[in-house]
Amino acid sequence: MKYKKHVFICTNQKDAPKKCCGAERGSALVEAFKASLKEKGLSAEIRAQKAGCLDVCAFGPGLVVYPEGVFYGNVQLSDVEEIVESNLVGDKAVERLVIA
Amino acid sequence: MKYKKHVFICTNQKDAPKKCCGAERGSALVEAFKASLKEKGLSAEIRAQKAGCLDVCAFGPGLVVYPEGVFYGNVQLSDVEEIVESNLVGDKAVERLVIA
Repeated sequence: MKYKKHVFICTNQKDAPKKCCGAERGSALVEAFKASLKEKGLSAEIRAQKAGCLDVCAFGPGLVVYPEGVFYGNVQLSDVEEIVESNLVGDKAVERLVIA
Repeated sequence: MKYKKHVFICTNQKDAPKKCCGAERGSALVEAFKASLKEKGLSAEIRAQKAGCLDVCAFGPGLVVYPEGVFYGNVQLSDVEEIVESNLVGDKAVERLVIA
């Protein structure tokens, strides 16, 4: 396994009025995850990156953490540190944000 | 696990002369995987989609299959059916294309 954890964050932009994650919100989340991982010296073993539509549009902004395949929805910038500590450094999902 | 298998294909476009996967080649692979899965009636349980840079640029076009975390490089359209049958329908990696 190249990465201990690999986070894919939807940055897909759908046309209104579809609910979606959005390029802007998704990219802000990607940057927040990357900054947190870099600060902790974990960028080599844990990767957070952009992805296209994860098919959880109704629950956006959405992301998935592999290898466990936990999907999170309605993720805000203020949730990033908790997800990093609990589910990336640790192996415990942040249950209140889990959608699948 | 929402998906039995989840394939992320790099469609990131880097500036020349960097080796990369590229929007055009990556998107053609995404479409080929989607078409194969749809034809087999597997779209609900196996998802293939676009992703940003997977950090395997030197080996592009690249993709990763989760939950096992197998990275493939130099993937051509002619390799799609073999990857689908062997590693998505089945659980056997296509070793000649594995890079990590």
